[in-house]
Amino acid sequence: MFNKQHVFTLQWPPLTSRQSLIFVITLCVGPYCLIIGQLSTASVLISISEFRLALVQLLVSPVKSENLSRARRQIKEAAGQGAKIVALPECFNSPYGTNYFPEYAEQIPGESSQVLSEVAKECGIYLIGGSIPEDDGGKLYNTCAVFGPDGNLLLKHRKIHLFDIDVPGKIRFQESETLSPGSTFSTFDTPFCKIGVGICYDIRFAELAQIYTKKGCQLLVYPGAFNMTTGPAHWELLQRGRAVDNQVYVATASPARDDKASYTAWGHSTVVSPWGDVVAKAGSEETIVYADIDLQYLTEVRQQIPIHTQKRHDLYSVNAVQEC
Amino acid sequence: MFNKQHVFTLQWPPLTSRQSLIFVITLCVGPYCLIIGQLSTASVLISISEFRLALVQLLVSPVKSENLSRARRQIKEAAGQGAKIVALPECFNSPYGTNYFPEYAEQIPGESSQVLSEVAKECGIYLIGGSIPEDDGGKLYNTCAVFGPDGNLLLKHRKIHLFDIDVPGKIRFQESETLSPGSTFSTFDTPFCKIGVGICYDIRFAELAQIYTKKGCQLLVYPGAFNMTTGPAHWELLQRGRAVDNQVYVATASPARDDKASYTAWGHSTVVSPWGDVVAKAGSEETIVYADIDLQYLTEVRQQIPIHTQKRHDLYSVNAVQEC
Repeated sequence: MFNKQHVFTLQWPPLTSRQSLIFVITLCVGPYCLIIGQLSTASVLISISEFRLALVQLLVSPVKSENLSRARRQIKEAAGQGAKIVALPECFNSPYGTNYFPEYAEQIPGESSQVLSEVAKECGIYLIGGSIPEDDGGKLYNTCAVFGPDGNLLLKHRKIHLFDIDVPGKIRFQESETLSPGSTFSTFDTPFCKIGVGICYDIRFAELAQIYTKKGCQLLVYPGAFNMTTGPAHWELLQRGRAVDNQVYVATASPARDDKASYTAWGHSTVVSPWGDVVAKAGSEETIVYADIDLQYLTEVRQQIPIHTQKRHDLYSVNAVQEC
Repeated sequence: MFNKQHVFTLQWPPLTSRQSLIFVITLCVGPYCLIIGQLSTASVLISISEFRLALVQLLVSPVKSENLSRARRQIKEAAGQGAKIVALPECFNSPYGTNYFPEYAEQIPGESSQVLSEVAKECGIYLIGGSIPEDDGGKLYNTCAVFGPDGNLLLKHRKIHLFDIDVPGKIRFQESETLSPGSTFSTFDTPFCKIGVGICYDIRFAELAQIYTKKGCQLLVYPGAFNMTTGPAHWELLQRGRAVDNQVYVATASPARDDKASYTAWGHSTVVSPWGDVVAKAGSEETIVYADIDLQYLTEVRQQIPIHTQKRHDLYSVNAVQEC
């Protein structure tokens, strides 16, 4: 298992993406050598700096068992298409609403996270399990559980910033009526890159993405359920902003839109490149979004517009108060 | 001269934008009172929480005296249209290019800043003087001088982040070949609101806008000259990102596009609202962009999506290392 960044430290001469070294593999007996194969660094680099990400834009129903079986089926479909990292949407096992959270809440481990663990192991993928209402000793959280290819729980991200907004005549929602906020940052390592996780409203807070980037994350994933007011206004803008400011890939996984639900999700699960371009985007219906994440491209963007090395650390700083 | 925020602290009962108190003005002699007038708080509030901003998208030529006289004419035109704050573009008195900077550089005070001071006083406006190449003891800076309605110099902002980028086959530019960076933050007070100033590439660094917002700025102004590569990719995105993340107005003033110049500016001087909407935007030609800045609307946006009070100061912080 190689991390691209580690490979770079071993390269001499330095390579650009359009150059390669050819290693010739020979079998030598005394003075006689037979070429038995060759290996191009270019092909090696490309294969380990790229991976497929899938976002499952699930149509969430009021029937939890149905949500779990649909999620399982679509995760397997995504893995079958080569996805190494799969993300589910926010609140994928329950309708989204403060009245639903107590009814659908579970402990972790629990029924829903057990399904996620099993399917991650079965498919050999990293699974960013959207979120579920989590019950921990009577307190409820909006929690994303992440599982590794061995089915082990890698982290739980409890939504840090609760969604309490009031746009008169458009939308009022107060998660804090039933939920408590989390208080930890959430990053995990993969063979491809480090990944940072936030949930929905967390994306409005630039500091979280800045800290994840400082910690070395190259992909930020936000399961989220923006609505019909904030969706068209800010969903894509916030993702593109996080991407271009930090020169990272940003991905969001939304529930599919259900016009009959009390809270209508915007949909449009999206992947944005470190240049700020939308590279993949769903409509509003149930679907799976795929994107091939190219970490070599990320490195090139950072070389071209080198804001990371140009930051004025003598003038300002962004810091985590708590270490993650 | 009232600042809207101060007025709010005096209000009782609290008012929304759709309510008003009527003050009845009476002349009383003994027990007899005559109503001689009335005053609505709504109309008072609107008149002091709104002001007109103008961005002069100047066509910059190689002839400095021409640039100065065109700038003077257009500033007077903008003031005649009711603008209280006027901004010029980056490098408004000189073509943009490292080879031009030494030739066009001046001290401040100097020829160009003298013109700015005079016209600010003549028009009774706040003038954000784009930028000029500044010579200070042999060191060159890309500097924005800001003048008050009395013609006094309020501040000099020396571009903090020098524009050193290299996008192969598209654009390579290295300001640091001839310029030195500034090292101070730049905000100033007006009767309307506090304003923060950056220059062009400074806008890529979210921290500057975050610190200005923490200091109470409600409008950020960036004279800038993005080019034909970074302009279409990032000019509007960065402005909308700064606006929505900080819930402030953001304005940029670019030179008009000159396809014959060695550096072709993107144009498209823009004003973005605290909701992230583009409220005014130029094309590529010489023009003046006007926008009526509504600080009551800014207050409403911050009430509707209250990210400023929801920030998790227990988890992260953005700080100025130096005090401004």
